[in-house]
Amino acid sequence: MEAMKQIQQLNQLNIVALAGGVGGAKLADGLAQILPPEALTIIVNTGDDFSHWGLNISPDLDTVCYTLGGLANPLTGWGRLDESWTVFEQMEGLGAENWFRLGDKDLATHLERTRRLRAAEPLSSITRDFCQRWGIRPTVLPMTDDPLATVVDTVEFGELTFQEYFVHQHCEPTVRGFRFAGLEAATPAPGVLAALEKADAVVICPSNPWVSIDPILKTLKHQELFASKPVIAVSPLIGGEALKGPAAKMFKELGFEASALAVARHYGSLLLTGFVLDTVDSALAEQVAGLGIVPFSTNTIMKLSDNRRQLAEDMLHFVQRLSV
Amino acid sequence: MEAMKQIQQLNQLNIVALAGGVGGAKLADGLAQILPPEALTIIVNTGDDFSHWGLNISPDLDTVCYTLGGLANPLTGWGRLDESWTVFEQMEGLGAENWFRLGDKDLATHLERTRRLRAAEPLSSITRDFCQRWGIRPTVLPMTDDPLATVVDTVEFGELTFQEYFVHQHCEPTVRGFRFAGLEAATPAPGVLAALEKADAVVICPSNPWVSIDPILKTLKHQELFASKPVIAVSPLIGGEALKGPAAKMFKELGFEASALAVARHYGSLLLTGFVLDTVDSALAEQVAGLGIVPFSTNTIMKLSDNRRQLAEDMLHFVQRLSV
Repeated sequence: MEAMKQIQQLNQLNIVALAGGVGGAKLADGLAQILPPEALTIIVNTGDDFSHWGLNISPDLDTVCYTLGGLANPLTGWGRLDESWTVFEQMEGLGAENWFRLGDKDLATHLERTRRLRAAEPLSSITRDFCQRWGIRPTVLPMTDDPLATVVDTVEFGELTFQEYFVHQHCEPTVRGFRFAGLEAATPAPGVLAALEKADAVVICPSNPWVSIDPILKTLKHQELFASKPVIAVSPLIGGEALKGPAAKMFKELGFEASALAVARHYGSLLLTGFVLDTVDSALAEQVAGLGIVPFSTNTIMKLSDNRRQLAEDMLHFVQRLSV
Repeated sequence: MEAMKQIQQLNQLNIVALAGGVGGAKLADGLAQILPPEALTIIVNTGDDFSHWGLNISPDLDTVCYTLGGLANPLTGWGRLDESWTVFEQMEGLGAENWFRLGDKDLATHLERTRRLRAAEPLSSITRDFCQRWGIRPTVLPMTDDPLATVVDTVEFGELTFQEYFVHQHCEPTVRGFRFAGLEAATPAPGVLAALEKADAVVICPSNPWVSIDPILKTLKHQELFASKPVIAVSPLIGGEALKGPAAKMFKELGFEASALAVARHYGSLLLTGFVLDTVDSALAEQVAGLGIVPFSTNTIMKLSDNRRQLAEDMLHFVQRLSV
């Protein structure tokens, strides 16, 4: 009865989540299991978007949508469930670039998105329609409808586009910085600022701070919207390692320790109200508190759907506590 | 021994074939079974080319290549053998237009062609590379690298693009004329005129005279290349009917009888040296001769691969006879 009451209260929170790919998608899915659709908006990084085979690909947006729609391949962390590779095999036979694998089902998303973008429909509008067709009820917004490209500056190759670095070079080059091409002209997509204004709290999902969350934060350009409400980040680093992707490697190459504490420092107390550490990192809680950020330790590994829901519930309780 | 000798002689002929889709592809395949690859050039109609789902589609070129490469679906007359429809089903789910069916294997052709065309590679160069990758040894050339669109003028809808008429409207509207948009600026693709100069004879395949062969003839603009060598057409109408497509319907709607004789009249004796009728139409041979065109009757139905080869052999013998 007590638990029921708590859940009802959690239901009444209005949340904006900032998300990159896999980790962001999982927590967004957990939040979607608890919150009514109208109370959840997910703002997704588009800095990794790129063009391949002449198609406009939005990897993080697709990972979030596929996950929320129950269409995602849980093994790979990208692409579609029950995928086939007929087009890809034929494209290889025709000599097309094959370093970025596109399955048949996934390809349709890019093909139709590309057609509509060329017809001057904004990405946010296309995404809204795709979500409706895929039965996704929370609001999913690209951070911007404008072109913004995360560029990774590397020791070995100089500047690489994100997918060149991430997929083609397997994150092997040494990172020395990032640039967000198009940032000055980019404005938040329609609905982004309104969702932030209405939100009771902002959740920064356990995505890569450098290349998934920073582009969103930089594109928002209205950090004052964060000032009046709790902003809570979940550490993407657990025991100094990222579950997926190059976050830990990036922290080290940029001269930081790879730890949850470094993540909390990266966002800083001007942005964050609270910070969620995995239980294996609970010893760092005191240092997080020392930064002026309220720490909270819980299990942040979301292997199963239940783990996603549980972390979302823990987060929302934490939000409630910070809102008092 | 006699037969062997004849075949050897046939081998020494250099042939240019003008082809549309299915019928053209089948005779081209028959010719390819007899002639050495360097002695056969197939010039293919591109007036039906169009854009769909943002992709550049060349239906006749693909039908010819798929047929020569052993990749064609023999049941439909278009598309690939052992085709799957995953992308198409997903595209339907996303609300994309579904009146033109594109299979997964076929889609790769359009996707890679579109990418290269956008990178300013000419269609003839892309086609040459695709043929090499598909193991097709005769030369296949689009009639032009320039945009040229067959427009069908109809009583019910006015002007329709060819695929709108052919696929979307199922050839139902009443035809009152044709227009070839872009004709003035279009020049023959590289290799077309040289192949015609070198050819011992030109074979007009049993394709639709109005919308498959006329665009090729009009784009060539150098009819004098035909003057010094036999030009032989195979009737696409058999017993007044087309095996496939709207040719007979078009003849009638434009005020002509639908018959092999009308086809011979359409091309005329200025162009044609010889004309191949199906045996069911052999009674028309005398009237064809009356036009100043040498008639020849044989089986022109190419159900099986052997029929293709046999018709090609008959054609080549006919060419030899006319060359004497």
